[in-house]
Amino acid sequence: MSLEQIGQQAKKAARKLALVSTTAKNDALEKMADRLGEQAETILAANQEDLEQARQAGLSPAMIDRLMLNEARLTNIVSDLRKVCELPDPAGEVFDEQILPNGLRVHKQRVPLGVLGVIYEARPNVTVDVAGLALKSGNCAILRGGSETIHSNQALVSAIRQALAESDLPVDTIQLIPSPDRRLVLELLQMEDYVDMIIPRGGAGLHELCRQNSRIPVMTGGIGICHLFVDDSADLVAALPVIRNAKIQRPSVCNALDTVLVHRKVASAFIPQLAEVLTKDGVTFRVDPLVEEILGQRYAGAVRPAGPQDFDIEWLSLILGIKVVEGLEEAVEHIAAHSTGHSDGILTEDEENARRFIAEVDSAVVYVNASTRFTDGAQLGLGAEVAISTQRLHARGPMALRELTTYKWVVEGNYHIRP
Amino acid sequence: MSLEQIGQQAKKAARKLALVSTTAKNDALEKMADRLGEQAETILAANQEDLEQARQAGLSPAMIDRLMLNEARLTNIVSDLRKVCELPDPAGEVFDEQILPNGLRVHKQRVPLGVLGVIYEARPNVTVDVAGLALKSGNCAILRGGSETIHSNQALVSAIRQALAESDLPVDTIQLIPSPDRRLVLELLQMEDYVDMIIPRGGAGLHELCRQNSRIPVMTGGIGICHLFVDDSADLVAALPVIRNAKIQRPSVCNALDTVLVHRKVASAFIPQLAEVLTKDGVTFRVDPLVEEILGQRYAGAVRPAGPQDFDIEWLSLILGIKVVEGLEEAVEHIAAHSTGHSDGILTEDEENARRFIAEVDSAVVYVNASTRFTDGAQLGLGAEVAISTQRLHARGPMALRELTTYKWVVEGNYHIRP
Repeated sequence: MSLEQIGQQAKKAARKLALVSTTAKNDALEKMADRLGEQAETILAANQEDLEQARQAGLSPAMIDRLMLNEARLTNIVSDLRKVCELPDPAGEVFDEQILPNGLRVHKQRVPLGVLGVIYEARPNVTVDVAGLALKSGNCAILRGGSETIHSNQALVSAIRQALAESDLPVDTIQLIPSPDRRLVLELLQMEDYVDMIIPRGGAGLHELCRQNSRIPVMTGGIGICHLFVDDSADLVAALPVIRNAKIQRPSVCNALDTVLVHRKVASAFIPQLAEVLTKDGVTFRVDPLVEEILGQRYAGAVRPAGPQDFDIEWLSLILGIKVVEGLEEAVEHIAAHSTGHSDGILTEDEENARRFIAEVDSAVVYVNASTRFTDGAQLGLGAEVAISTQRLHARGPMALRELTTYKWVVEGNYHIRP
Repeated sequence: MSLEQIGQQAKKAARKLALVSTTAKNDALEKMADRLGEQAETILAANQEDLEQARQAGLSPAMIDRLMLNEARLTNIVSDLRKVCELPDPAGEVFDEQILPNGLRVHKQRVPLGVLGVIYEARPNVTVDVAGLALKSGNCAILRGGSETIHSNQALVSAIRQALAESDLPVDTIQLIPSPDRRLVLELLQMEDYVDMIIPRGGAGLHELCRQNSRIPVMTGGIGICHLFVDDSADLVAALPVIRNAKIQRPSVCNALDTVLVHRKVASAFIPQLAEVLTKDGVTFRVDPLVEEILGQRYAGAVRPAGPQDFDIEWLSLILGIKVVEGLEEAVEHIAAHSTGHSDGILTEDEENARRFIAEVDSAVVYVNASTRFTDGAQLGLGAEVAISTQRLHARGPMALRELTTYKWVVEGNYHIRP
């Protein structure tokens, strides 16, 4: 089947799906979970094929772990899918209601975006996560997983489509691009007649590829160079575990901390404590000259002078940049110059500095006295997320069900004419 | 000055402008209006240069009228600018406040988009309209007007920037690309590091050029193939003036009516009346065979069979398509196939059909018993608009001040860590 046909089918399915009730969508989600559970054996066997090929291709153990499924992981995936039933359905929500002076009754009504093009790598759980969130929000999805998980994804999507057919919902709500041909990604990015939004899930390279080549709006995100600024008024004892949490809880993800900025007045008191705590966790540091001076030789093995690009790297590992700043203003300037606009925070007891930081730092999520690790749909009360947007249009920060919708205006009159 | 420098200046100005109070922005708007009023003579002289060149270049009288300024028009432009002061400032608005179970205090806060790239043709009033709406919403604008109004635009922007300087606001809030070189448009569309949104204002060709070449999100819109469906339950007497208003009040704009769909049951009764009324206004028709049969020879001079593409044309003139449909379902199908998703409506007395039409027609603005001419920021209570979006992301329908903003999440805690 050609990609064009897949697009046409998706567009057609989207019109039908937009009219399906919440109950029917939830029933289909339950059926999807049932089928995935029942077909565990087939799915795991398909995953074995992928693992076999991955080993033969010499993929790294970390990569192999990412694409590996087992019973426990599949059970989790299925249980996450059932949880999507409990999330409120954003489609149909009515808002901004008004009656105009001329008597026209006006409101906005939330409707699905239509067709999502999702391009991702490795982890096969994304296939099921995205399918669930797309269906619940009334959107169709065209999935393009990595070639290294093609067998797993085919087995997963086959179970999902079977459930759709049994639920009397459009089977083409969820489609998988069946070929690993990379040219199809570029073709997908040009299908503006059929696809309403491109969601890349992967590294900076994938996002850049999509932005460069897409005629369809791309939700850019997932790249976080994140900062915490330790103000001179901060509770230094309380600040330590926040920085530790932001850096080490899961260093490989986008909301993990990359750079700590420390107010000069508390630099000598705080930075040695910070080094003391974090070196125990295996963290190493890229530091400016003043920090190097403060730390002296004690942590010599863990401390390296920051190179010219070091404050522009998303570390995704146990490396942390540390820099001394003169105060709030320099901290804000540093963040404006080096942040990717994902998650940046201040640790402070000074209410006025907190206000200024919130006003002057323009990131998707701005924190006061909290770990950057909270930038996550579930943590911020949205339920499962499909991506974290660092672009400015449409949606910013965690994108969950509501962010997969648009709205239409509804205007009702009594044969009104414009004077 | 290079376009890159213009972009850098805009980005820098945007950071400052985002922190400016509503009062200061309103003061600057008043000053802009004052300066434009005082410099009327200079502005009109510059416009004369443009008119002179336009005549020499042999532009059509319609085109020349579009770019012409006179005292009355300038007075209107200035008075519209003063009205922007009265509109509420969307920046800073707080919404979606919540306290999470763990005590984190979360809200969203509306912030300006940043830098708008506006590409437009002819009418110099757009220069002032956009400058006013950009400033009020806290956005910088890089303006690229048509080469045929370059002198007028330079005079207008000079007055505007003088007012900004006097108001102690960043002068580079409003910048005009000083050269008419068309390659600069393509360069602007690639400046994703400096420009957050591209707003094309012009014909389908300009929108297509922007979509094809832009790495920056483009607000597509302003192209309306608009429909009204006359249901068999419609009040046919009341329906006539609605259709007339939608077609003839201002046929050259995007919310003007292009096609009337008539329920077969009322076709013989209604279509002759419709022809009777509209031919008096000089409207001519492109009709399907059944309509031709119903109308017979009586309006022969005004009736032509619809060609294969005729229902896919935005007429922008006194031409109207008429087609008989079997009922609501065929009407909805026709609209799905031929509408640009701008403004489509039903005329009906049947509540259930109204509900179905609203649910099944997915256009930016869906009407029940009203003229499509209400798709307009001012008419729908938003104040002045910068564009009418027919795309699905970010904003749909009239885009006014609020639609020129994004939001950031603000998360405030007590040294919270993620468990």
